[in-house]
Formats: sequence, structure tokens, C-alpha cells
Amino acid sequence: MENFDLLYSLLESKDYRNLQKELKDMYAADIAEFINELNYEENFKPDAVIVFRLLEKDEAAEVFPSLTSHSRANLIGFIGNDELKEIFEELKLDDKVDFLEELPANAVKNILRHSDNKERELINRFLNYKEESAGSLMTVEFITLRGDSTVGDALLKIRETGIDKEIIYTCYVIGPNRKLIGVVSLRDLVTTPKDMLIKDIMVEDVVFVHSDMDREVVADVFDRYEFMALPVVDSEERLLGVITVDDALDVIEKETTEDFHIMAGVNPSESSYLQSSVFSLAKDRLIWLVVLLIAGMFVGGVIDNYQWILAQYLILNSFIPMLTAAGGNAGIQATTLAVRNLSIGEISFKEMGQVALKEFKVGLIVGIIMGLTAMLKVIIIDGAGLLIGTVIFFTMLGGILLAKVVGGIIPILADKVGLDPAVMASSIITTLVDGVTLMIYFNIARLILPL
Amino acid sequence: MENFDLLYSLLESKDYRNLQKELKDMYAADIAEFINELNYEENFKPDAVIVFRLLEKDEAAEVFPSLTSHSRANLIGFIGNDELKEIFEELKLDDKVDFLEELPANAVKNILRHSDNKERELINRFLNYKEESAGSLMTVEFITLRGDSTVGDALLKIRETGIDKEIIYTCYVIGPNRKLIGVVSLRDLVTTPKDMLIKDIMVEDVVFVHSDMDREVVADVFDRYEFMALPVVDSEERLLGVITVDDALDVIEKETTEDFHIMAGVNPSESSYLQSSVFSLAKDRLIWLVVLLIAGMFVGGVIDNYQWILAQYLILNSFIPMLTAAGGNAGIQATTLAVRNLSIGEISFKEMGQVALKEFKVGLIVGIIMGLTAMLKVIIIDGAGLLIGTVIFFTMLGGILLAKVVGGIIPILADKVGLDPAVMASSIITTLVDGVTLMIYFNIARLILPL
Repeated sequence: MENFDLLYSLLESKDYRNLQKELKDMYAADIAEFINELNYEENFKPDAVIVFRLLEKDEAAEVFPSLTSHSRANLIGFIGNDELKEIFEELKLDDKVDFLEELPANAVKNILRHSDNKERELINRFLNYKEESAGSLMTVEFITLRGDSTVGDALLKIRETGIDKEIIYTCYVIGPNRKLIGVVSLRDLVTTPKDMLIKDIMVEDVVFVHSDMDREVVADVFDRYEFMALPVVDSEERLLGVITVDDALDVIEKETTEDFHIMAGVNPSESSYLQSSVFSLAKDRLIWLVVLLIAGMFVGGVIDNYQWILAQYLILNSFIPMLTAAGGNAGIQATTLAVRNLSIGEISFKEMGQVALKEFKVGLIVGIIMGLTAMLKVIIIDGAGLLIGTVIFFTMLGGILLAKVVGGIIPILADKVGLDPAVMASSIITTLVDGVTLMIYFNIARLILPL
Repeated sequence: MENFDLLYSLLESKDYRNLQKELKDMYAADIAEFINELNYEENFKPDAVIVFRLLEKDEAAEVFPSLTSHSRANLIGFIGNDELKEIFEELKLDDKVDFLEELPANAVKNILRHSDNKERELINRFLNYKEESAGSLMTVEFITLRGDSTVGDALLKIRETGIDKEIIYTCYVIGPNRKLIGVVSLRDLVTTPKDMLIKDIMVEDVVFVHSDMDREVVADVFDRYEFMALPVVDSEERLLGVITVDDALDVIEKETTEDFHIMAGVNPSESSYLQSSVFSLAKDRLIWLVVLLIAGMFVGGVIDNYQWILAQYLILNSFIPMLTAAGGNAGIQATTLAVRNLSIGEISFKEMGQVALKEFKVGLIVGIIMGLTAMLKVIIIDGAGLLIGTVIFFTMLGGILLAKVVGGIIPILADKVGLDPAVMASSIITTLVDGVTLMIYFNIARLILPL
């Protein structure tokens, strides 16, 4: 997206003063991309460190969380503990936690030794939240108000303390014991007379999540209500922190990537493709391939069982790929759509009957057209005769009908029993449909052909 | 998520007064879900209209855009033009445009007749933006400031006009001719002394998009910079409107759904699954199925060509499903990951060599392990002998190696020439790999087996 030619030429001519000037005018996200690029090429890695060191401390703290973990690891390897500490101090709390999770244990100790007690306690609490929980996503830099203060007081508080807060557009109203009792937006504060009381303008029916809720549920809540921020409470509804919508965006991206992985029969992993080792990539893929290989052996067994039919009609053999592929493809269509529709909330267990009926009708139309096409090909081009053509027609229709209905239902059932529905897509449905289509094929052949 | 039992019982006992009270305390998103539920069941449809009519006008305007298009169509069928007009007047401009796009033409005319000139002109401009462009996503309800006014003036303006604006957290600074010259956040306004000038605190290097840019590019910009709002300008950089982050979220969801559809070999469509007719679903799926069927016929042709080998070694036949399935599955893994990595920006054309090398190495490891597993099965369980076992080993290795490398590269090439990379996933790669694996199989058999 960005063109870094000027930056590269300044780097080459070692004109660091002008480089620093250029960097000052850039967005953190763009600087991060430039440093990532430098880090990828072995001979530019020292330059990445130079560029990073040219940044002001606060700018460095903004760029750092936007780097890839690969770039961060490289930088951490180059720069000393004291410099790390300086960056650390400038980071926001949630970025601090992420930062510490990437550091080697002794560096963590070294850095935490210099934090004050309150911060150390906070950080430790965060490090204890489970990785995919709401607690691990939240920030503690937000504004709390009291119900009996006025709008004017609230605006004054925001004016004084707002600069350091990550979230100021939504303010949370707390009662005794930090219990969350209401929420008020900065929009309301700046458009309401200053002598009104907060408790009279706040929304009391606050939507919140618990710190141990799964991050996917959190993303769903954001999607549903279109909030910009969502409070996190403990079991006694005391306010612990706030999650912002951009974190929800990240979660949605990660969960979608996970769906893609699972659908392709790859163990989901959060580490990036380019930085994963060949062995870990191979391992993530082998498990399912072997499972499917064993399933595939059973499919081969079906053919073995009917070798006596093939021995008489060898031509039936060359139609097998066409029949199993069509069934598999029809099944992939149905499962993939079901997986996606489940994940965007379009269908649920309640609609299973509706889905089955719909897929049956679609399968009927698609199956008849595909069956006729294949039948005509077999009779006209291959000259296989009407009887074999009829076998092909009914196998195609039966295989597609079955693939559509089973493919549409299985992800819903998987979801119902708590499995990730994506597990049931693509590869598994193909293998299943392959086997059943072959059984249909040979049984219809046995019925129709003179043997 | 929500439990509507109470609402249902109030509906049944026709206690509309208490139902109205309940509705008053609910979020618009939840009311919309309830009305959607009612609209799904034929005998509850009149109730959906009753519930909708119990809402205050402004609440109805908030609920309406959250309904499914199915529910909206049902309501529009029940309620008269005058009532439609009332709802219309309460809607925000971008929702008005969406609303009009769903109405029959004569109703549109009827409603627009009563809008004032300025609004009619705006709406017509919106209706002319291309469906997937930045222009079609934007709102015109935002706040503009002048560079020479003070922070205090700006806050006053927001206090007076902010209530009706969709966006108030980001304000746009315009110069002569509405040219966009800067941006300032409400955060800065409420945390800066009131006598400062806007031009001294505004950010001048504004990131913007053009009204004709594709919505996918817009979503990428949001993802990159984590903005809450993004200004839209014309070719002379005059400010036309603003896109909010929740619209970007919608776009990301729609684009991902499109990827899922295309990967499964289904023509992408934006209408919802449950509301699409069986015929339109069948049509969207048939095109690719027929293309793949024809491709599958060629795969069958490969078998035909080597019938003379099969005639001597009939046992080779029963290993075909296992071999083609393994190649296909390995290919699906590589393409799906490549498609996803392209869409999240992890890889691009620049990294194609790196991807090819990585996939080759992964394919080598996976292929050898899969090959050995299949070979042992064939020799020990099927008693097929060492020679046939060797044929199986090399076919498995060759097929997987090829599937991995080709599967990893093809989406990148498709992306490079401007095709949607998802087109090259799942079904197509499977068919391609099937054919090539069979050729490898028979050629290795010809080399190794005594014929």
C-alpha cells in the first residue's frame, strides 16, 4: 500500500536526520509496516533496529504493538533491557501484558521489578486470564463516574484525566464496591445541560460480559448491539475493565481464520504462516490427512467388494471419478454454506428441519440436471448404452441428494453437541459422500444391469 | 440469546399495554430479533405488525434497519404509505437510502414527494453510487468545523447540533469549497484548553477514501489504522461524507461470506439463505457443478486410457479413491490457507517463491509419511506385494507434493491477475489434482510393474 522508496534511499545514504524527519510525519501503522519489511530481509535487520531507535519514545510505544511478532522478536534480540524498560513504560496496560508474554522469563522479572506495586498487581491479574477469555481482551484505562455528580463535573474530570485513558467516549457509572450501575456516552455529556445529574441521564440497563466469557461471545455482542466499548464485570457485577470494538474486530478476524483452517482440515494455529516452521506446518496438516487416509481406505474397500461387477462391466470404472467428485462438490457447497450461516447467526438448531427440506429440494433440481447431463455424455460420447446411462443418472441423483441433505445438516448437529461446525466441512464430507456414492452406484448397477 | 417468553405470553393474552411497557425497556437490536422471530411463523405475522406499531416513532426508526429484509418486506406489505412516510422521516440518511432501495417504485415516488428539496437531492445522489463503493456506505450526518474557530466554539456547536448527528466523536475541518483540510477528535476537544484554535490542534495529514473506491479497500483502511470513522471525498478532495467503523464491520462480514461461497463453488449472493428461493439456490450452485462435472469427465478419461494396465492389475483400482482423496485433501489445505493468508495480507505476490519453497518442504514431509502409511497398508493388509506397495508410495508422495505446491501458488497467481483467489480453492484444486494424481499413478505403475 505504502511506497517506502524515499525511506530506503535515506537509509542507504545513512541520512538519519532526514529519515527521522520523515518518520515523524508518518502514521504508526505505516512505520510498523516499514520496519516489518526491513525485518524480513536478513541484510536489512540491523536497519530495522536503527529505524526503531530513531523514533521518539512515545512513538516507539505506539509502533511496537503494531509490529508482527517476528519483528518484535528481532528487535527484542537487538536492544538491551534498559531500552526495553523505557518502551514498556510508555505502553498501554493491555499492550504491556502482550509484550511481557513474548519476553523471556528473566527479562520479564527485570522489567516488572521497576513497576510500582499497583501496576505489578494489575499485570499479574491480566497474565492469569485465560487466553481466549473476555478478561484477556480488556483495558483498565477508562473513565468512571459517580451517579450524584453533575454533567459539568464529569466533563471537568474528563478534561483532567482523559488524556491518558484509552476509552473516553463511553464512561461507566459505579456505585458502592465498584458495582457497575450505569453507562453514559461522551455524546450525551456534551449535548446535555451541565447541571443535570449523571444518574438522571445514564442508561441503567447496561449490557456487560463476564471476565471468563469466551472471546467469540464477546465479538457476537459487539456485532449485535454495535457498541464501541463493552464493560467486563466479575461474578458480583463489579467493573473490572472495558473491551473496545477494535479488539472485537481482531477477534472476528482470528475466529474466521480458525474456521478456514478447520474447514481445510488443518489444526488451527495463531502463529503466522510465513513465520511458522516447516515441521509445525506439516504437523498441523498431517493429523487430518492420516484420519482421512484411513477413511479413504474404507472407501477403497467398497470398490473391492464389488470387483465382480467391475470385472463384467469394466467401463463402469471410468465413471467413478466423475460420480464421486460431483457428490463431493455438491456436499462441499452445502456444508460450507451451513458453516458460514451458523457463524453469522443466519441458521441455528431450530431451523434444521427447514434447512433439510430446502437442501432436499435444491438437491432434487441440481441432481436431475447433473444426472441428465452425465447420462447424455455416457450414452452419446462413450456409447455406453441406455442401461448404463440409467445407472449413471440414478447414482448422480442419489449421490447429490444425499450430499446436499447430509452436508446441510451435519454442521448444525455438530454445533448442537458443542463441536466446531467447521470440522464437518470439505474433506470429511467428501470422504463420506465418496463412500456412500460408490455403494449407491454398485447397488443400482446390480439392480439394473444383467449380471 | 434473548428469552422472549414474557413477550409471547403478553401477546397471547392481548395485554398490549404491558407489552408496550416491556418494549420500552428493550434494546432496538433485541426488539428487532423478536419481530424477526414473529415474522418467520406464518400465524404470528399479524403479531409482528402489532408489536411494530406499539413502538414510539423514533424507536420504530431504530428497530427498522435492524430487521432482516424478509421482516421488512412483510411489514411494508401490512402498513400503509402514510405510516411508511412517518418511519422514513425518522430514519438516518443512509438508512433512508437502504429503505428506499427495498420499496416498490411507486411507494418511493410517494415518499420522496414529501421530502424537502435538499434531502431529495442527497438521496438521489446516494442512490446513484455504485453498490459496492465507498459512496454507498457513507453518512452525511457529521460535524464540520472551521480552522479559525476556537475549541470552545466547536464544543458549543457540538452541544447545539450534535444530537442529530450520527458521528460526533470525529469532527472534520473544511476550508474554502468544502475541501477537507484536517480532522480533530472530540477527545482532543474535551481535553484541550477552550481558547486554542482548531487549526492548531487538528491533524492535517488526513487519511481519506474516494467515493468510487471499492468497499473492500475501505475495510482494509479501517483494519490498518483502527479509525472509528473515515472521510469520503470527491476527485477534488471535497468532503462528501463519512463512513463509520460499524459499516466497515458489516463489509468485512459480507466479504468473508463471499469468500466462503466462492471457495465452495457457489455463486456469491447477498440474499440470506433462509429467504432465498430453492430455484435461486440451485442456480447459484449448478454453474460450478456443471463446470466441474465436465472437468471430472476428463479425469475419467485418464482411467479409460490406462484400462489395459487395470485389466492386468485389477487391484490397482481399489486404491484410486485413497490416492486421489489424499492428494485432493492436501491441495485443499494449501489453497485454503493461501486464500486466507492473501485476504488478511499475510502473503502477496512478492512472497510467492517463499510460499512455493515452504509448501514443497511441507509436501515432502507429509508425502513421505502418508506414502509409507499407505504402502504398509497395501502390503500388510491387502497383501499386494512390494512392487505394488512401491507404486503406491511414489504416487502418494508425488501427488501430495504437487498438490501442496500448485495449491499454494495458484491462489497467489489468481490474485495477481485480478481474479478472486477464492475461485481457485477446494473443488477446482481437487479436480485438477485428481487428474494429475491418476496420471502419476499409471505412469509409475508402467515403470515399476512387469506388464
